[in-house]
Amino acid sequence: MITKGRGLLIVISGPSGAGKGTICKRFMEKNKDVMLSVSATTRSPRVGEVEGINYFFMSKEQFVEKIESNDFLEYAEVYDNYYGTPKSNVEEMLQSGNDVILEIDIQGALKVKENTREGVFVFILPPSMEELKQRIINRGSETNESLMKRFKSAYKEINFISKYNYAVVNDKVEIAVEKLEAIISAEKCRVDRIKDSILDSKEGIIHEQLYD
Amino acid sequence: MITKGRGLLIVISGPSGAGKGTICKRFMEKNKDVMLSVSATTRSPRVGEVEGINYFFMSKEQFVEKIESNDFLEYAEVYDNYYGTPKSNVEEMLQSGNDVILEIDIQGALKVKENTREGVFVFILPPSMEELKQRIINRGSETNESLMKRFKSAYKEINFISKYNYAVVNDKVEIAVEKLEAIISAEKCRVDRIKDSILDSKEGIIHEQLYD
Repeated sequence: MITKGRGLLIVISGPSGAGKGTICKRFMEKNKDVMLSVSATTRSPRVGEVEGINYFFMSKEQFVEKIESNDFLEYAEVYDNYYGTPKSNVEEMLQSGNDVILEIDIQGALKVKENTREGVFVFILPPSMEELKQRIINRGSETNESLMKRFKSAYKEINFISKYNYAVVNDKVEIAVEKLEAIISAEKCRVDRIKDSILDSKEGIIHEQLYD
Repeated sequence: MITKGRGLLIVISGPSGAGKGTICKRFMEKNKDVMLSVSATTRSPRVGEVEGINYFFMSKEQFVEKIESNDFLEYAEVYDNYYGTPKSNVEEMLQSGNDVILEIDIQGALKVKENTREGVFVFILPPSMEELKQRIINRGSETNESLMKRFKSAYKEINFISKYNYAVVNDKVEIAVEKLEAIISAEKCRVDRIKDSILDSKEGIIHEQLYD
């Protein structure tokens, strides 16, 4: 009764240290039919990095051309290099009915939200601010000052949660991944999303039933 | 980081023959912590029916009193007897943090929607109109005329789907139940629902972290 139709764009985001990377990795292992959005970048490929898998590598000129033709869902300049999410690539995957995961920081997610009317926005939360602090500490040796700065920034970023549709606490990775799976499964049952295809197919079938 | 809080009111509804009863039964078997809303009625108890389990039995006077004090989420008169969903009973279960399933026909669900601002409304769809017709036929011997009438009524009712949040196709019961479970799990991650508790708890924790 419901046609497959367009895939879902699932934006996974959250403060640094909340564990969005770990969740996405485990999710992708379990859900082979879901595709990962690949970023474009102007930085040089590192050893082992593959075009179209790790990144779409391009020159600064190519990147700027794409910015001007409005072909990025979001982009940013970091240390003299550009990074961005190509719209056409995501669009192609969605149109062929594949769900697409976009793992991105909060600033990026907010830009994506401005540039598209679709997207399911999921905010990954640390189990507690204490735990977040521990994770930031465990990442490597930082000075007390830079640590407090990162911690305060994560604290501020959590206020952006109100721009998101869902929040998932990353207490246990497996449970967080199950919640993400539930969110995707539920989104596919949302009436806003499937109403037209139900009513269309009803019209077709009812026509056969009553009038043929 | 997120407190348990108030339970979810899940309204399961759909046209006669779509199989909402079967889905609810299986769902309740699998999810023992979820509670089923019990209807009130003015009809006499049948052999084996237990007060508070099958129905809350009451006199017509008691029922009308409850109508007047606005204590029903919905009610209807059927063949000289009243049936209704007592608000206070549902409220008590929700307040103690239990999720509550309310299985109800479409007219009832629409009244519930008018009478409360909460509730997750799930529409159970038959796999096809042809299948719905078969299920209506299989229920018992009906004349062609009454059968066509029930079928047309189910057809019309499907238009009310736009008043609901979710639609679940009852193709295979186990899959439909899993979708219902996913919907409930996802709803508990909705930012609208949990934002305040996250931001409250963040304030508490951050205060300790930064200023104590």
